[in-house]
Amino acid sequence: MQWYFVPVLLTFLTSSQGILTTFSQTNGRYNYDYATIPFLAEIFKLLVSSFFLWRENKTQSPPRMTTEWKTVRLFVVPSVIYLVHNNVQFATLTYVDPSTYQIMGNLKIVTTGILFRLFLKRKLSILQWLAIILLAVGTTTSQVKGCGELSCDSLFSAPIQGYILGVLSACLSALAGVYTEYLMKKNNDSLYWQNVQLYTFGALFNMARLLWDDFRGEFEKGPWWQRLLNGYTFTTWIVVLNLGSTGLLVSWLMKFADNIVKVYSTSMAMLLTMILSAYFFNFRPTVQLFLGIIICIISLHMYFVPVHLLVDSPARSKGASSILKEVTVENQG
Amino acid sequence: MQWYFVPVLLTFLTSSQGILTTFSQTNGRYNYDYATIPFLAEIFKLLVSSFFLWRENKTQSPPRMTTEWKTVRLFVVPSVIYLVHNNVQFATLTYVDPSTYQIMGNLKIVTTGILFRLFLKRKLSILQWLAIILLAVGTTTSQVKGCGELSCDSLFSAPIQGYILGVLSACLSALAGVYTEYLMKKNNDSLYWQNVQLYTFGALFNMARLLWDDFRGEFEKGPWWQRLLNGYTFTTWIVVLNLGSTGLLVSWLMKFADNIVKVYSTSMAMLLTMILSAYFFNFRPTVQLFLGIIICIISLHMYFVPVHLLVDSPARSKGASSILKEVTVENQG
Repeated sequence: MQWYFVPVLLTFLTSSQGILTTFSQTNGRYNYDYATIPFLAEIFKLLVSSFFLWRENKTQSPPRMTTEWKTVRLFVVPSVIYLVHNNVQFATLTYVDPSTYQIMGNLKIVTTGILFRLFLKRKLSILQWLAIILLAVGTTTSQVKGCGELSCDSLFSAPIQGYILGVLSACLSALAGVYTEYLMKKNNDSLYWQNVQLYTFGALFNMARLLWDDFRGEFEKGPWWQRLLNGYTFTTWIVVLNLGSTGLLVSWLMKFADNIVKVYSTSMAMLLTMILSAYFFNFRPTVQLFLGIIICIISLHMYFVPVHLLVDSPARSKGASSILKEVTVENQG
Repeated sequence: MQWYFVPVLLTFLTSSQGILTTFSQTNGRYNYDYATIPFLAEIFKLLVSSFFLWRENKTQSPPRMTTEWKTVRLFVVPSVIYLVHNNVQFATLTYVDPSTYQIMGNLKIVTTGILFRLFLKRKLSILQWLAIILLAVGTTTSQVKGCGELSCDSLFSAPIQGYILGVLSACLSALAGVYTEYLMKKNNDSLYWQNVQLYTFGALFNMARLLWDDFRGEFEKGPWWQRLLNGYTFTTWIVVLNLGSTGLLVSWLMKFADNIVKVYSTSMAMLLTMILSAYFFNFRPTVQLFLGIIICIISLHMYFVPVHLLVDSPARSKGASSILKEVTVENQG
């Protein structure tokens, strides 16, 4: 199997998520509690990973598993970061409108590059940095509101706190990714064992969130476990399985590829979602979507295509110097 | 003098052109005949080039000048192409609205690259091709109408003839540039002698255009030479001198640099004009202008920065292969 099969699959699953979620609505609203989706997805990922870990345990070479609390406790960190991130996200949205928030979200691409460099000490070439900036510019371009759409007076006219929180949000999101990559690559433990730890904490934190919602609602609708599957349809289950599978692929990428591959995968998914939305929900695709797609594809080539394939012509390096020579000749003439 | 001084100066003069032209209006209209501007600019370029040619002739090593009609007659071709181009442009605008026309105009960047490759046999690396496409995408992005602006129902809803003519227009515009470069580099003739030939034909064609306008208007306002400078102000003269200087710089680039340098220069000028317009005419700069500027600057780096400076990291070439290795290890585990 070629390694890029995983990010390509991730792109398709991620882009299906938005479409499926919309299809899971009945008459434009959710008949189920949306907060149960990530909880059940964590449970699904935990079950799948446990099964594979159990199978690995039966082989002649059992999986490497570090079980010291000193290491295990590190797996709680991503869940904590996501918890903080969700709250910062919520606070940001009290200052900025959703369009500005969506556009600021692309900053995550650049902050991932920066934290990837700082914390994982991975060197990137200037061309790769340009590619990362271009990816963020490309996704932003595709999201620019078109002419004829609602007025955008509100765009980038929020108080300064909104932008600071937006940047913080982009940093936290990147930090969660980079930290997970650090965890997964830290030792040669079995991917499934690492997953089991990650998803156990994930399930616990999601459960706490459901409980917290119950507390805030003063248990009016009863405790979460009594209404967990209320309103679930076949499509809702597909949404759960899809989100769970996405998570499993991300774990695989964190161990065997890296955050930048993931960022490309999810950015491409965002564009694919917009194309699919245009198809399924009869939106008219905008010029800026078309431009954004070209920009992101160029960025993809700049980042991943080996440089000797990008620069195969001997003419290139001569460019500026041959001009200089001609100028010199001219001045003497 | 560094060679890039010329394209940078060209960028500034080209971007001033639009601003100065707007300033030359009185109460939102032209008090002079706009068609006289390119004619007088040709005369200005002819005078300047003749002066420098005369000075060159007085030096100990007189300039190289090919005076056979066989060569001289080639200098009429750019003028003929521009004449055809102007008419195609006019025909295109009967089918498509100005916004679509402006956006299609960016195709010129790509057609210049193609004709540059085909006719001048200049090889470009894949990275440089990506940079050229990106430049066209960047300039287009900056021109996308923002939200709150007028409806864009008309955008890209023209009859097919409009698009065919738009593509033809982009090809003719590129052809004029590439042919001029071919002429200027064809032999080692003095730049000033080549200019004199080019601008003589240019002045004649522009004069013919003024005469043609008179014929169509049935000489109601009298012949063009009697009202040539009617309504000219100081600013109008500045517009003439600016257009003329721009032309002289383009000639220099065609001889000592190339069409791609010119295309970058004029694209950057377009962006600079938009920034200056925002400043002078109180437009609010759009997000897409900001994105377009970043895209074009990245493109500029991809095209001109020597590749060893873009890819200085040994990590790069390892990227995909190290992932593959890890996957292999995993499969064996």
